[in-house]
Amino acid sequence: MNKPLILITNDDGYNALGLSSLVEAVKDLGELLVVAPDRPQSGMGHAITVNEPLRCYPIDFFENIKVFCCTGTPVDCVKMGLYQLNDRKPDLILSGINHGSNVSTNVLYSGTMSAAVEGALEGIKSIGFSLTNYSSEADFTASREMVTKITKNVLENGLKEGTCLNVNVPDVPLNKIKGIKVCRQGRAFWDDTFEKRVDPLGKDYFWLTGSFGSSENKPNDSDVFYLENNYVTIVPTQFDMTCHSTIEELKKQGFEL
Amino acid sequence: MNKPLILITNDDGYNALGLSSLVEAVKDLGELLVVAPDRPQSGMGHAITVNEPLRCYPIDFFENIKVFCCTGTPVDCVKMGLYQLNDRKPDLILSGINHGSNVSTNVLYSGTMSAAVEGALEGIKSIGFSLTNYSSEADFTASREMVTKITKNVLENGLKEGTCLNVNVPDVPLNKIKGIKVCRQGRAFWDDTFEKRVDPLGKDYFWLTGSFGSSENKPNDSDVFYLENNYVTIVPTQFDMTCHSTIEELKKQGFEL
Repeated sequence: MNKPLILITNDDGYNALGLSSLVEAVKDLGELLVVAPDRPQSGMGHAITVNEPLRCYPIDFFENIKVFCCTGTPVDCVKMGLYQLNDRKPDLILSGINHGSNVSTNVLYSGTMSAAVEGALEGIKSIGFSLTNYSSEADFTASREMVTKITKNVLENGLKEGTCLNVNVPDVPLNKIKGIKVCRQGRAFWDDTFEKRVDPLGKDYFWLTGSFGSSENKPNDSDVFYLENNYVTIVPTQFDMTCHSTIEELKKQGFEL
Repeated sequence: MNKPLILITNDDGYNALGLSSLVEAVKDLGELLVVAPDRPQSGMGHAITVNEPLRCYPIDFFENIKVFCCTGTPVDCVKMGLYQLNDRKPDLILSGINHGSNVSTNVLYSGTMSAAVEGALEGIKSIGFSLTNYSSEADFTASREMVTKITKNVLENGLKEGTCLNVNVPDVPLNKIKGIKVCRQGRAFWDDTFEKRVDPLGKDYFWLTGSFGSSENKPNDSDVFYLENNYVTIVPTQFDMTCHSTIEELKKQGFEL
């Protein structure tokens, strides 16, 4: 029997430590195919490249592993991995390990998680992994353990079709991790600000910045809360954005004709 | 009393016919603030610009309306409109009218809809509008009528917090529109292909293409089905991507520790 084919991508780029940590954590679990962006693609959400062409080329980066570098977004990388760079359909798609957490509504902005959601759209078991440390030199030791454990479970037991997992790991040593919680996406939001600067020619430009905060009472059963309390969080994530409970309400509100 | 402030954006760029059609349709319903991308941003999903700065400058484009052109994505435009370009918080965010439909899972890829979802995240009533015609010279006559009607209802009666509306209009004359249906996001997916070409230097490049198809039996109660049958569709859309029904299942599957 063939080893499972595992397609790997990320949003920090092919040379990020989080990607090599992910590869390290799962290299014994299957045959790996890495298709990663050629530069950082954080915050790209579910963007795809439609107005310009893509380049994608093999690079010699991890020993004995097929690696492609792609000019597109994380979702482009998944599509290239599925439809162009390999004959065999992957059994599993892994994305990350992201440098920085992706809890709560960050699932929408996150290239890491959008790659996993794209996998779910394709009917392929998918997991996005993130560590709550933005540093390019973050310590992924504990994350690697968690990645191996969770990936093994998914390979052995599967995932419900149409869902993927959003896994966040706290930035603490393994023995300080209190456990793993399966939970819901928290209600937390960005309070954005723009830092206005003036360029040498006297023209304004703006950097997006801001702070992320929860609007929920604590304790609660969200990923935000558990991650803050040093649990690894797993949110089963799907792609139906319908607010089913308000369909009837809107009908009563006179929207139908 | 102040007129309601309506923030308007799109993903086809400030000079798209769909944007001027949207402005035309709602200009009597409030004070308008337009913040639109300086170039086409289709397929940008919920992308935000974090790795480079943004430029945003006023332009003289619609008579008596404040218009800004922005180098970022549709979601960047919403954030700029909320946090930088105006002191007053908008009462309503409208996005579109998109040249091309955004039914079903296209809500994830769509810059138009991501701008509306961003509005919902900010607790502001928001609507994304799309017409099933990709042409830059599409006829927005019927769409304008629908935009006015639906926007008036939302201004008068509100929307449930945390939801926005995904409105799609069929590309037929007004008298051929059968009605308006409030419904769910359909289960339809892209079957992607990449068209491989060779540049003048002999190097490969790829264009993303593909076909969009539903995996559901017909008739059904999805936006895909109703739109095909010449109904305007309204899907209440929210941003909780948790698959709540599988949380307990995953706990049983041994993911927790």
